[in-house]
Amino acid sequence: MTHKVLLLPGDGIGPEIAAQAKRLLQACKEAGLDIDVEEGLVGGSAYDVHGEPLPAETLDKAKAARAILLGAVGGPKWDKIEDLTKRPEKGLLGLRKNLGLFGNLRPAMLYPQLASASSLKPELVAGLDIMIVRELTGGIYFGQPRGIEERNGERVGFNTYVYSESEIERIGRVAFEMAQKRGKKLCSVDKANVLEVTILWREVMERLAPEYPDVELSHMYVDNAAMQLVRAPKQFDVMVTGNMFGDILSDAAAMLTGSIGMLPSASLNESGQGMYEPCHGSAPDIAGKNVANPLAMMLSVAMMLRYSLGENTMAERIEAAVGKVLDDGLRTADIASEGMQTIGTDAMGDAVLAV
Amino acid sequence: MTHKVLLLPGDGIGPEIAAQAKRLLQACKEAGLDIDVEEGLVGGSAYDVHGEPLPAETLDKAKAARAILLGAVGGPKWDKIEDLTKRPEKGLLGLRKNLGLFGNLRPAMLYPQLASASSLKPELVAGLDIMIVRELTGGIYFGQPRGIEERNGERVGFNTYVYSESEIERIGRVAFEMAQKRGKKLCSVDKANVLEVTILWREVMERLAPEYPDVELSHMYVDNAAMQLVRAPKQFDVMVTGNMFGDILSDAAAMLTGSIGMLPSASLNESGQGMYEPCHGSAPDIAGKNVANPLAMMLSVAMMLRYSLGENTMAERIEAAVGKVLDDGLRTADIASEGMQTIGTDAMGDAVLAV
Ligand SMILES: CC(C)[C@H](C(=O)O)[C@@H](O)C(=O)O
Ligand SMILES: CC(C)[C@H](C(=O)O)[C@@H](O)C(=O)O
Repeated sequence: MTHKVLLLPGDGIGPEIAAQAKRLLQACKEAGLDIDVEEGLVGGSAYDVHGEPLPAETLDKAKAARAILLGAVGGPKWDKIEDLTKRPEKGLLGLRKNLGLFGNLRPAMLYPQLASASSLKPELVAGLDIMIVRELTGGIYFGQPRGIEERNGERVGFNTYVYSESEIERIGRVAFEMAQKRGKKLCSVDKANVLEVTILWREVMERLAPEYPDVELSHMYVDNAAMQLVRAPKQFDVMVTGNMFGDILSDAAAMLTGSIGMLPSASLNESGQGMYEPCHGSAPDIAGKNVANPLAMMLSVAMMLRYSLGENTMAERIEAAVGKVLDDGLRTADIASEGMQTIGTDAMGDAVLAV
Repeated sequence: MTHKVLLLPGDGIGPEIAAQAKRLLQACKEAGLDIDVEEGLVGGSAYDVHGEPLPAETLDKAKAARAILLGAVGGPKWDKIEDLTKRPEKGLLGLRKNLGLFGNLRPAMLYPQLASASSLKPELVAGLDIMIVRELTGGIYFGQPRGIEERNGERVGFNTYVYSESEIERIGRVAFEMAQKRGKKLCSVDKANVLEVTILWREVMERLAPEYPDVELSHMYVDNAAMQLVRAPKQFDVMVTGNMFGDILSDAAAMLTGSIGMLPSASLNESGQGMYEPCHGSAPDIAGKNVANPLAMMLSVAMMLRYSLGENTMAERIEAAVGKVLDDGLRTADIASEGMQTIGTDAMGDAVLAV
């Protein structure tokens, strides 16, 4: 069966790194992978053409695809759009919500070749390998009521942080299963000493635990988790948390590696359909200069092959090729270091494809 | 006029470090400071006696005091209390809310003597000096409606993240004024690309900016702020944010110094009445062992002298004494390092008092 893949380059450096992913997909095809790659517009670039960050056409294509590869969305060009529903980010949030991509997997892994890129002392991060499982279609990102309105003669802004038992259970299972496949340790992050919604969160995690007797479940308050990530990140294996805390902690964890330009992510729904994107953003300041690191995007292709297309061997080949390129001393500017060769986006794509 | 001070030792290591603060206050008194120190119960230790984490008696004493010195609250002993309103943390939250202590000042400062304690590379943190201004009596901590209830046949947990213009303006002014007294840079942290309440937050900060023309205002999304703290913390001078983001970011920032046992904090209301407490928690695992670091608590006394009692000279004397003790190579276990002398809580108190 032909795998349908939708490539959404998006904004900023998105198109540049997407171009490298496209070449990689083409190479996979030549190596026997049965895929059909379509392209579409999302984010600011969709707004510029259609006046919408998520045109109906893109959403239809996304629904029909087994997997979506997204570059990045957003940039100062669209920051002044008054109508919040038209901002580039809403294209991304709309895809997540409409496809039910509730399970966000964000690895924070340090490539041994890049140990010196971390801002942390090498001994604290050597071998770092954390998987953050973030709930992606609920919580305060989507909770109702929300808005800005007049109350007692002044304006008031409000959002709702809400989770149901079934939403918590669903992401909990993803996390427990992930822990089973990895180091068998799961840390659930909440603020159960203050927020009722996370008291329910903690309770559901506790209720699931006996079904996964090989996994050791612990709980941590979000403020402490932020501290522990800075202090001793290697204590973690899998972490699970809600949408907002996950946004913050996964970015902090990714930055611990010093090489966020290397980190892919996956967002999955219940049928295994997924969206894959680099953890870094659209980096408008370096867009169009052929200096962006395409590796997170190319590793997103590998993650897609593994999680949505069941093509593990090809995924491993890509990951090995990236390792080889690093071994060879090739670096883009973001991960450059003394004695290594700094190259551009295209040349990095060439190097991976040449392995 | 006699300054009234209320000492609330609290739980865990609270009583041990409070004992050192008490000795320090006594020394200040002998040096001519006109204060009257009372004591009270709060948190788990109040619950054990009165069945309430914030007994009416304590609240009355707190209202009558110019300043409150709090050790720490909470511990596993009280984690199983079913009624959330009786948990130790509610004692702390109740004090904040009832006294209107909306302005939380959390410095993250690295003592040059302790540079090696940081998990970050020394060059990234040398000279670090950030002040986080956190709104403390609003936001999702106190927003209504909140709870856990049955909806469509399952339980749902919910909290409300809410701020009014006047609440934002009030904390914004504290932050702008703080920036004026420091490096004149203010970074406001929000999630205005997703949350309406923080769109209003950003708008109010922008509106205030022209009144403080000497302060350079910038905005950052909370996920990026968490990353930037890890990547390059010295870019920040003053940061201002809401209650929940402030909880997370101030703990991360404190941990960057590697010496959270050194950091005091202040929580102020509009009349300058304040509560002062160390940033570290109750550390139940080391309670009662005479190993806790009393310096954050002693520096909280200094902060109190400065912000609520207007006794700057005495505050400086305490801070200088702490610096001297570190220069002399004395360390508690949490900041111990090779070649330095590790001493206990009491001995550290002695050392500061002896300067
Ligand atoms: C762009 C933004 C809406 C998004 C989020 O907050 O989820 C991003 O930060 C992310 O983590 O993917
Ligand atoms: C104990 C807890 C309720 C409190 C908070 O979340 O505010 C603490 O973490 C703090 O930061 O002072």
